[in-house]
Amino acid sequence: MSNTLARPIDTVIAQARGFLRERITTNAALREQHSHGEDAMPPALPDAVAFVESSEEAARLLALCHAQGVPVIPFGAGTSLEGHVNAVRGGLTIDLSRMTAILEVNGADMDCRVQAGVTRQQLNEYLRDQGLFFPVDPGSVCTIGGMCATRASGTAAVRYGTIRENVLGLRVALPDGRVIQTGGRVRKSANGYDLTRLFIGSEGTLGIITEITLRLHGIPEAISSAVCQFDTLGGAVETVIAVMQTGIPVARIELLDDVQMDACIGYSKLEGLRPVPTLFLEFHGTPSAVAEQASQTEALALEFGGNGFRWATDPAERNKLWQARHDVYWACLAYRPGHRGMTTDAIVPISKLAEAVLGVKQDIAASGLTAPIVGHVGDGNFHTVILVADEPGALERAWELDKKIVARALALGGSCSGEHGIGVGKRGFLEQEHGVEALAVMRSLKTAIDPRGIMNPGKMFLN
Amino acid sequence: MSNTLARPIDTVIAQARGFLRERITTNAALREQHSHGEDAMPPALPDAVAFVESSEEAARLLALCHAQGVPVIPFGAGTSLEGHVNAVRGGLTIDLSRMTAILEVNGADMDCRVQAGVTRQQLNEYLRDQGLFFPVDPGSVCTIGGMCATRASGTAAVRYGTIRENVLGLRVALPDGRVIQTGGRVRKSANGYDLTRLFIGSEGTLGIITEITLRLHGIPEAISSAVCQFDTLGGAVETVIAVMQTGIPVARIELLDDVQMDACIGYSKLEGLRPVPTLFLEFHGTPSAVAEQASQTEALALEFGGNGFRWATDPAERNKLWQARHDVYWACLAYRPGHRGMTTDAIVPISKLAEAVLGVKQDIAASGLTAPIVGHVGDGNFHTVILVADEPGALERAWELDKKIVARALALGGSCSGEHGIGVGKRGFLEQEHGVEALAVMRSLKTAIDPRGIMNPGKMFLN
Repeated sequence: MSNTLARPIDTVIAQARGFLRERITTNAALREQHSHGEDAMPPALPDAVAFVESSEEAARLLALCHAQGVPVIPFGAGTSLEGHVNAVRGGLTIDLSRMTAILEVNGADMDCRVQAGVTRQQLNEYLRDQGLFFPVDPGSVCTIGGMCATRASGTAAVRYGTIRENVLGLRVALPDGRVIQTGGRVRKSANGYDLTRLFIGSEGTLGIITEITLRLHGIPEAISSAVCQFDTLGGAVETVIAVMQTGIPVARIELLDDVQMDACIGYSKLEGLRPVPTLFLEFHGTPSAVAEQASQTEALALEFGGNGFRWATDPAERNKLWQARHDVYWACLAYRPGHRGMTTDAIVPISKLAEAVLGVKQDIAASGLTAPIVGHVGDGNFHTVILVADEPGALERAWELDKKIVARALALGGSCSGEHGIGVGKRGFLEQEHGVEALAVMRSLKTAIDPRGIMNPGKMFLN
Repeated sequence: MSNTLARPIDTVIAQARGFLRERITTNAALREQHSHGEDAMPPALPDAVAFVESSEEAARLLALCHAQGVPVIPFGAGTSLEGHVNAVRGGLTIDLSRMTAILEVNGADMDCRVQAGVTRQQLNEYLRDQGLFFPVDPGSVCTIGGMCATRASGTAAVRYGTIRENVLGLRVALPDGRVIQTGGRVRKSANGYDLTRLFIGSEGTLGIITEITLRLHGIPEAISSAVCQFDTLGGAVETVIAVMQTGIPVARIELLDDVQMDACIGYSKLEGLRPVPTLFLEFHGTPSAVAEQASQTEALALEFGGNGFRWATDPAERNKLWQARHDVYWACLAYRPGHRGMTTDAIVPISKLAEAVLGVKQDIAASGLTAPIVGHVGDGNFHTVILVADEPGALERAWELDKKIVARALALGGSCSGEHGIGVGKRGFLEQEHGVEALAVMRSLKTAIDPRGIMNPGKMFLN
């Protein structure tokens, strides 16, 4: 513990000790744990970490930090891929992972209210017996609060929308310690400014999301998965465009390129599949609706050079397939032992996806790096996992490639982030994407809600 | 034209004359036309009306009004039901109804960009040949810009979402004359604060929406409509809850109560139907999906006392049915000749809908007024058309009933507006619904973006 008693953070720690006791700490290991997410950004340690158990505790801490001008970094599961949780200006990290209460589930209305530290896995486990599920699926074990903060989505967004479309309301602790409730339990409303959507995607820069009211969905009667392989990347992407245009309500439609498939076949023992561009598909509905959606999709795939569907209708086989999809990151690491992975994120209008992905493949080739491509193609969203060798200059080359990928997406009318957020790494792109005036409006909102600038400083905005 | 040359509005008019010529006017008839929407609020005339043809003209006018502190009221088709367009503090009404250009349609991406004055009817007419449609359907002939400003929805929101879920980006002229672009063409993003959603539903109090990028949908292969009659209101509502919980993707599911049916049977010549609680349904999809959805829904309806489906599969019969639904307002007026109609709007969690509607029927009975009920029940949203006699005190009694309906919705965890907005009439409910602190946050956003308070003053916020 620091002995410089004059530091504002020490005042906050001393005052917070009264109500948090041992739940506020300067323990070095815990500070280190809270210094980074799952990305390649340089870690940055907070001065202290507090584990809160209620909205009120979070609000009391904020009031203290506000009074002392101490930076606050909200922390959920620490799965950020853009440096959101790195304490780049020190301060107090407020960890919400102990706020794991599922406060209410309303079966008839298909909604629920949870504390911010509940993970989607915990929630879905809890809901299963009621025939309900929460569909937003970014793959990782992340908290609902963190998903809101970064406007997360994932593989099922093509059917069920992102977290933005699945949140009805929020409880938010504001930077000065006030607590507000946004939204409500109704499915729609025209009742004032949309504060819910303002906090979703605000990356901890406007306040701390402490509770979330979520829309839920009925578990579909039938679920069916398939893979379809293509000789060309263009054929796979054209199939996706046709599926979307036909209005087939696919639940998931994922693209893995030849390199990614090469990695996955080895890692996940995907027998009988070749290292060529491949779509992973899932259909939800009644048995007959699923059968119809699948046969319509298969017909379109054949038209664009697909080699027919390989089915996975029983749960074990289906789980194996989607486990392989969720394990792409680990498959990539195993593909180039000794390397680490840098995950990129970009999104384009779907008509530009083939051009974007083929262009990115050229960029990868020119870089000399290995970078498999995987995409939530129904949304036009794609990632690469750039494999970074443990050698001088490798990380810089990877950053360079990341910048090229984003520039390419922006040039095609896309966005610098489909779902991972801005954080530290993409702040430079924000003005480029939105223009100086729109960014000025964002800054004015930030100033209106967080006039002292204590909330997650150094994120989203440059300086 | 006024001869008091010192008035700020006159300065604005004189300066705007240079680039708008005869398109800025103080003509009495035009001012009167722009003094009200379609509600029972007292009309309030603007000092002048300007007809703009581009974002740049709107922005130039805003810069002039900002400099002079002149109130600005954006105006689309004038179909507001909550006094949004009434110039309660005078000023300049900016009419966007001449901005009717459809700027681009991207078939492969299923999106388009339109000027704010395009109506949904104009857009759908234009799109039909491309197999695409824009699904948000509030019934009236309204502009896309106005729909964005009030966060409109309507009968198809249960399947396709409200305007909020169908807008990708906006062009907005800010109060000081800057123009920003929000969002983009991608289906999702995690790229900074959600300015698009902030302006949607802002009711002209933050800026003028001049262009909209919309998501489109493929015209379904098959469309089928049905009506189903019930002996009890509870049975009809329980059917709706079951349909939603089963996840049947109904395209429309509308409730008309016994009184509304009585009015509609007479007005729209609905032969063979009785004046009892009735559901109007529509199903979209492939022929087999539509058949399956319909038979599932019919089975549920029978379980809850429904009297079987009456089908309308051919376009003429289907149009007659939905025309009757869209004509409920006129049916109500014909039901009590000499009365005018005051349309109310409230929404509750769907599990509370039976309680809300039955309670409202008691309120209506106690008031001695006639007020048929019609609802977008899949969303928990319902309206009454209070029929107001031309006699002293009648309007006051109608307002009193309106207040009771909203209070009942709020007490059941609902919202004071599902889709019509706050405007003038519901400002008092906004704090009640959100709490003083959340309302303070809304006000701080308003101040950040419109520091001089010129944008649609007297709307949304009390004083």
